[in-house]
Amino acid sequence: MESLKISNAWIVTQNHKRELIKGDILIEGGKISAVGDITDNADKTIDGTGCAVIPGLINLHTHISMTLMRGIADDVHLDAFLNKTFEVDGRRTREDVRLGTELGTVEMMKGGTTSFLDLYYFQDEMAKATEASGMRGFLGWAVLDEEFTTQKGNPVDNAARFISEHKNKERIYPLPAPQGVYVCNEETYTRTQELAEKENTLTHTHLSETRMEVYEHEKKYGKRPVHWLDDIGFISDRLIAAHCGWVTINEVRALANKGAKVAHCPVSNMKLATGGVAPLPEMFDNGVVVGLGTDGSSSNNGLDMFCEMKTCALLHKAHRWDATVLPAQKVLDMATIDGARALKMDDEIGSIEIGKKADLAIIDLNKANMIPAVRENIISHLVYSCQSNNVRDLLIDGQMTMRNRVLKTLDESDIKERAQAVGQRLIERE
Amino acid sequence: MESLKISNAWIVTQNHKRELIKGDILIEGGKISAVGDITDNADKTIDGTGCAVIPGLINLHTHISMTLMRGIADDVHLDAFLNKTFEVDGRRTREDVRLGTELGTVEMMKGGTTSFLDLYYFQDEMAKATEASGMRGFLGWAVLDEEFTTQKGNPVDNAARFISEHKNKERIYPLPAPQGVYVCNEETYTRTQELAEKENTLTHTHLSETRMEVYEHEKKYGKRPVHWLDDIGFISDRLIAAHCGWVTINEVRALANKGAKVAHCPVSNMKLATGGVAPLPEMFDNGVVVGLGTDGSSSNNGLDMFCEMKTCALLHKAHRWDATVLPAQKVLDMATIDGARALKMDDEIGSIEIGKKADLAIIDLNKANMIPAVRENIISHLVYSCQSNNVRDLLIDGQMTMRNRVLKTLDESDIKERAQAVGQRLIERE
Repeated sequence: MESLKISNAWIVTQNHKRELIKGDILIEGGKISAVGDITDNADKTIDGTGCAVIPGLINLHTHISMTLMRGIADDVHLDAFLNKTFEVDGRRTREDVRLGTELGTVEMMKGGTTSFLDLYYFQDEMAKATEASGMRGFLGWAVLDEEFTTQKGNPVDNAARFISEHKNKERIYPLPAPQGVYVCNEETYTRTQELAEKENTLTHTHLSETRMEVYEHEKKYGKRPVHWLDDIGFISDRLIAAHCGWVTINEVRALANKGAKVAHCPVSNMKLATGGVAPLPEMFDNGVVVGLGTDGSSSNNGLDMFCEMKTCALLHKAHRWDATVLPAQKVLDMATIDGARALKMDDEIGSIEIGKKADLAIIDLNKANMIPAVRENIISHLVYSCQSNNVRDLLIDGQMTMRNRVLKTLDESDIKERAQAVGQRLIERE
Repeated sequence: MESLKISNAWIVTQNHKRELIKGDILIEGGKISAVGDITDNADKTIDGTGCAVIPGLINLHTHISMTLMRGIADDVHLDAFLNKTFEVDGRRTREDVRLGTELGTVEMMKGGTTSFLDLYYFQDEMAKATEASGMRGFLGWAVLDEEFTTQKGNPVDNAARFISEHKNKERIYPLPAPQGVYVCNEETYTRTQELAEKENTLTHTHLSETRMEVYEHEKKYGKRPVHWLDDIGFISDRLIAAHCGWVTINEVRALANKGAKVAHCPVSNMKLATGGVAPLPEMFDNGVVVGLGTDGSSSNNGLDMFCEMKTCALLHKAHRWDATVLPAQKVLDMATIDGARALKMDDEIGSIEIGKKADLAIIDLNKANMIPAVRENIISHLVYSCQSNNVRDLLIDGQMTMRNRVLKTLDESDIKERAQAVGQRLIERE
């Protein structure tokens, strides 16, 4: 693999000191080998003048394949939303799921995202598309009780097979992902946990997203979901729980005690009007690691982590009547190093430091919406002003997957053409 | 002026029936002369296949020149924000205000905006930059009591002079704009109103943005700001009041009774954590026309109307715990035809109808973040998925101001270079 130098850029290191360095980055063997003022030559040099280099963004909760269902059920109550989503979803083939993933990788890479955590079925198809893209995919096989699933066979067994077949593939990190307490009983969660321990994987689940979910569960089991899951051993440091909008301070403490992580999805929660706002300041105070996710494209309706970061800051400031809550630096942390910590990959990704994998986005600051850009406002700009199309280049494992906004690993035009045709068929056949 | 045909596009008419038509638009003499299936040839034809044509977006409240102050005071309490903003603002020259406007017109046009309503000083400089851009500028000269202003002479007299000198300029609509009840007394508001009536202009003011503003005023005058302004005759159908986040239902009715309009600024209100959320459903129920504004770039930090539309929908759904509030169609209305109604220009702009001025944005639907695009989801996509860079072409008065994302009226590179240099000087000199 050629060595590569990115020269003369603003380097948003996201290291422990959150240093912002004007200088160069050297990449050798897919890893960062030097950061700062580098005199050595590399096989190839990319001019980073007028650019910021940031760690590739980490989308910590999505259903990437749902890109094909973008805009199918907006501005309706949650039950109507779910009915419509399940109805269209049920008509999709394995090939459709794969194509939706292809479109999603295009959209994410063009927006600076290098890693994502997904919860869906047919993850074997999604793995193929993810591998082709070059992205780093944490692929959670959806697990439900047999009585609720449309999968053939037992979902935990299916997840086990998926993990066993994919655990050694490059940039593919398979894991089991129970859908939620409303479709997963104690045995399903327990068997999932055993599988994750046996295979040493993460776990991922939807948790306390809606008020109904929490109160129905409490009525049925006498316990709120987090406490119930804690009692049966599912709250652990393997867990990344999506949403957690309806949690008490004692539930926050239960998550913290076991080292569980949270994937916060502000846009989706707001759009679906789930009501509860994840208590991020209390999570931070208790040491819970929180990352950011877009959720699926039928509830967002995109995979844009810049929109997610800005909305995250806005939501919490507005909710607390306090403009100092969720400052830009903390929001950027959530989308980078904190996401990496949630994925237990913070030794390898999430910051720009020597020895880490070269997952990097190069942001063009010379855009009307980013000017003036100076040391003092670059972090602010990344959260409050940056748009996806300001991402000029993208590297994953040191591989240039996008250069000057042209994808190098995928045929963008071909994917878009096929996705438009299939998406149109799916929506119009209703 | 050449005739122009846009062919084979999705035409988001925003007419009374909110028709979405697949067809062509003919433009003659700067105006729309036909919409639908057009067989006539024009001097020039633009292929609209795979595109949506929308009325140019209307930014109903901004301080466009503050682009140069982007990111100077984020994540701080309001008093610290205002102190920092005023401090940097005070050091700016006439030329800086003009340059900030130039940068703002670039940013707005690249994001599909064709008209804006501004409140600032040195509007004579801003008028020059606005004219050069080809944009439609509603320029509100900031009016304050003499004891509070940094202007030379009396601000109402200055506004009068500005209006008299600019009232016949093309696409420039001058008006007087009192800053707010905290720096404008009864005489200032009354004299402003007389000036607006004499010159037959709109008026614009900040109103009930923060809790402190409302309660301080009530303490001093025994009345909430809207009622106080109503008593002294300033609430009228000329008025576009920005914010109105802290208004009672009786204040909403007072606005409605006099035909006053509201410019809602969700991103700015959320980021500054002003707490109050403008009661849009109640405003709509009472017949108050509400448009959308970005506010200035130190509180947003951009002039992106697509971000503003999405945030508007998200904020109100989350605030009311009701996903059906503020549906995409209504949000798009706010940014187009309702903005035009607020500006008393709905006979001329805000929708795509025969006889109206050709202020149009052509949106490329063949982007990863917009696929699949079909009749059923185009309105949703415009609000929930569209990004500024999806705007391919822009027309104002039939003039092509942007074609294939290249500005035709301005030298974008030159403006960006000068804005970066001056902005850097302003921020770093602190």
